[in-house]
Amino acid sequence: MEMAAGGRARRRFMERLSLSGLGGLGMGAMSALGATPVQAATGSEVRQWDGETDLLVMGSGAAGMAAAIEGARQGLEVTVLEKFQLAGGSSSLSGGVCYMGGGTPLQKALGFDDSVENMYHYLVAAAGVHAEPARIQLYCEGSLAHFDWLNELGVRYATRFSSDKELSHGADSLYYSGGEQTWPFREQAKPAPRGHVPPAHNQTGGRELMKLMHAAAARLGVKVQLRMSAEQLIRASDGRVIGLVVEDAAGQRLNLRARRGVVLAAGGFIHNRPMLQRYAPELASSQPAWGRAGDLGMGILMGLGAGGNLLRMDHGFAVLPLYPSEEVLKGVVVNRFGQRFINEDAYYGGMGHAWLFQQQGHGFLVVDGDSDYPGPDYRFTLAAEAASIEALETALKLPPGALVNTVGYYNQHAARGEDPQFRKQTKYLATLTKPPFKAYDLTVGKAFCTVHTFGGLEIDLDGRVLDGWGSAIPGLYAAGRTSASLPVAPYLASGLSIGDGTFFGRRAGAHAAGKGA
Amino acid sequence: MEMAAGGRARRRFMERLSLSGLGGLGMGAMSALGATPVQAATGSEVRQWDGETDLLVMGSGAAGMAAAIEGARQGLEVTVLEKFQLAGGSSSLSGGVCYMGGGTPLQKALGFDDSVENMYHYLVAAAGVHAEPARIQLYCEGSLAHFDWLNELGVRYATRFSSDKELSHGADSLYYSGGEQTWPFREQAKPAPRGHVPPAHNQTGGRELMKLMHAAAARLGVKVQLRMSAEQLIRASDGRVIGLVVEDAAGQRLNLRARRGVVLAAGGFIHNRPMLQRYAPELASSQPAWGRAGDLGMGILMGLGAGGNLLRMDHGFAVLPLYPSEEVLKGVVVNRFGQRFINEDAYYGGMGHAWLFQQQGHGFLVVDGDSDYPGPDYRFTLAAEAASIEALETALKLPPGALVNTVGYYNQHAARGEDPQFRKQTKYLATLTKPPFKAYDLTVGKAFCTVHTFGGLEIDLDGRVLDGWGSAIPGLYAAGRTSASLPVAPYLASGLSIGDGTFFGRRAGAHAAGKGA
Repeated sequence: MEMAAGGRARRRFMERLSLSGLGGLGMGAMSALGATPVQAATGSEVRQWDGETDLLVMGSGAAGMAAAIEGARQGLEVTVLEKFQLAGGSSSLSGGVCYMGGGTPLQKALGFDDSVENMYHYLVAAAGVHAEPARIQLYCEGSLAHFDWLNELGVRYATRFSSDKELSHGADSLYYSGGEQTWPFREQAKPAPRGHVPPAHNQTGGRELMKLMHAAAARLGVKVQLRMSAEQLIRASDGRVIGLVVEDAAGQRLNLRARRGVVLAAGGFIHNRPMLQRYAPELASSQPAWGRAGDLGMGILMGLGAGGNLLRMDHGFAVLPLYPSEEVLKGVVVNRFGQRFINEDAYYGGMGHAWLFQQQGHGFLVVDGDSDYPGPDYRFTLAAEAASIEALETALKLPPGALVNTVGYYNQHAARGEDPQFRKQTKYLATLTKPPFKAYDLTVGKAFCTVHTFGGLEIDLDGRVLDGWGSAIPGLYAAGRTSASLPVAPYLASGLSIGDGTFFGRRAGAHAAGKGA
Repeated sequence: MEMAAGGRARRRFMERLSLSGLGGLGMGAMSALGATPVQAATGSEVRQWDGETDLLVMGSGAAGMAAAIEGARQGLEVTVLEKFQLAGGSSSLSGGVCYMGGGTPLQKALGFDDSVENMYHYLVAAAGVHAEPARIQLYCEGSLAHFDWLNELGVRYATRFSSDKELSHGADSLYYSGGEQTWPFREQAKPAPRGHVPPAHNQTGGRELMKLMHAAAARLGVKVQLRMSAEQLIRASDGRVIGLVVEDAAGQRLNLRARRGVVLAAGGFIHNRPMLQRYAPELASSQPAWGRAGDLGMGILMGLGAGGNLLRMDHGFAVLPLYPSEEVLKGVVVNRFGQRFINEDAYYGGMGHAWLFQQQGHGFLVVDGDSDYPGPDYRFTLAAEAASIEALETALKLPPGALVNTVGYYNQHAARGEDPQFRKQTKYLATLTKPPFKAYDLTVGKAFCTVHTFGGLEIDLDGRVLDGWGSAIPGLYAAGRTSASLPVAPYLASGLSIGDGTFFGRRAGAHAAGKGA
């Protein structure tokens, strides 16, 4: 991409802002207002283009880079615009898990059977009423090819399986990253581990994945420009998206033309409080927000301003991480009525959803001397500690007898290795009998529960942004958490967001190149 | 309003459709496609106006008639367009309850204390994270004036209070129509009965209310045209809504001009299956749909097509009517784990929400010989009947001991007039000890649970439709269930939808007249 000097362009841009009635209010100020969509500029008003390429990608996380790489592989000239000094987006903060299955080489090498059907049935079951079967089917059928695609980029998995529920701190590359082995899903689809992690220590797989993707992109000639903040879409008079207004590190405004399209891959809106309050008040009530500082909803707002339709804006990922250590899963999680409400070994996204959306963010984790955290737990504060369940119940001000009842019933069956109510896996069943008994406080606002958004622009199976009519907006794509795609609440498994972003990001890049992925 | 002969207008309309790329696909066909917004026509393309008035109102239910009446009171010429042969919309099917308080003359005459603050606190508490405090405050502060307004229309309430939870089948005019007396709300606001019902037998208050509103409208010169189906908004080049394309009983298309604005008050979308599946899959899973056949989302789609923003499209009213008879509230409602999950005396909208959204539509109502329905209950089928709770539990295939445990705990406390877990009112507490024990099936799809939608066009406090930027679309109003307003899930009280529609409909009419309500 060729860049012209920005001074004159900036002046013209500001003039245009004035002409269009925005007065002295710059776009940066507009976005700071919160849930205010950013209206697209009209191409006929652009008197000078400061650069031109085939495909412009907003955001350098996994979704954006997948679109960029695939576009470049298929012959497009591609520029990625990254607002920050550091590339990689929220993907680089993540574990880098990619949810793949159907019999990947890694699954096979580690002796796990899987099939497209099993993977499909798990995802459909876990997505419940919010499942988009056609999208899930495409994702499952394309999973082996997606594994190969990542392999070609240089992503190599270690032939090491971890049986831990949480992403390994070592360099293991395959694990059960969702609720495949837990009830009720284990009855609906044959379990298989599908969380594929680039080998990395201390859960830095996301950083590794992004390094590899950026290196692959560089080899393909993709330009990644840092500290370039996309601010506004530019549309032709026929509605086609033909470019972006961006602000460079010096504060200069530039009009960049995109001959084949623009991909919005700028993350979700977890850091935009007004948007969160308006669309997802439950998520707004929890903390901390999970995501890099750029998750301000800018991509979503820009797409909305161009006529894009929004879906599932109330959905998100609420991670209530009881584990590790998995020892505590032998305890019970109870609501404010002293009742259990979910199997404690549920995937932590399922646990977080049940707790935040169905129990209004109330509850306690109750453990005994054998099932307590090995050390003081930084995530949850101690609500009470007592020598008996009766005393613990009193200290927690639970309904009299309720917790005693719950633990009594639980112990009676756990002693036989059974959990007839919630069907927790046998390995997490143990009687709670050894003092001291402790209750950790799972009250929203006090408990550590990271949240992230899933709602965004409606896209078709090629990543094209759809307007309210269900028609694709020409030249406009979205991927990752800027779009509403595979991840729905309760979240289905770790690695599904990266998996979705890279899979449908790829398809967006391919579509922009006029070819299939 | 003057109507020109429609033949030529229709021909021109069809030509325009062809010109705008829609080919031979008429608007009726488009709306039959489901979740497809109806794009606004451009005023410059209208070569002939077939009629003209100040205010056009789409829909003749309570919200539309309130807008029409207030507009006419303030000097506007108003025409209401009703798609069907029978006026009154879904409001006429309803009980006609209007939620009002703060010390209305009827409340005072019946000896009930209430205040604006109590009413506000109840509504804010019941709306939870979805509360819009400014909207609730305006509604509560204006409630006495709204009572007077209805009185001026001829709505007379009988000075008769009913202590029944369900709307009286007699001609009582005041009752507790929400969960004011139930936990936890009775602790958050001093309870007062706020359900105001026009006297009518057999729950036909809605028909009475609509008769009175239509009569009042006629006295004010409002024209109500039946079998006139609004199909499309007409916008001027500056975006202002200036009219409607309507189809008359003979299938003629007419362009009607509105000098001061258009009010979309065409109900919700409970009868539009594709919209329901896309935006509110939980509601789609239950039945029957509650609403007249016109609740097809046409008003919402027309507003969306003009750039209106949608809010809370997943919210709705899920009525799980255990009562009457209230005897059964002495029983317990349990989930598929054999646990209680809500006070059985909860408002039936709260019960329906907890059951459908939080228990995924699973559960049983368990009663004994003393708490059973007096006759065979048509709403729910019998899942099991047994001589003991143990045998009932086995027959229901509940986790062993779970129901025995639940009923044992319940009985132990009910014997003392207590319900420490869910704090059901004392009058509904009784031990369940007398055979036969019965369980009624509350499985979604089998159980009778009427559903209705709450999501729709975002409006400001004057009923103006807001676009995605948060700006009002000039000339466009929405009211009632075409808008997203006071009713949120779980529904707060019967009468809030009619209350909201008439209150904010009034404000829309006043705003269109250039004055306050």
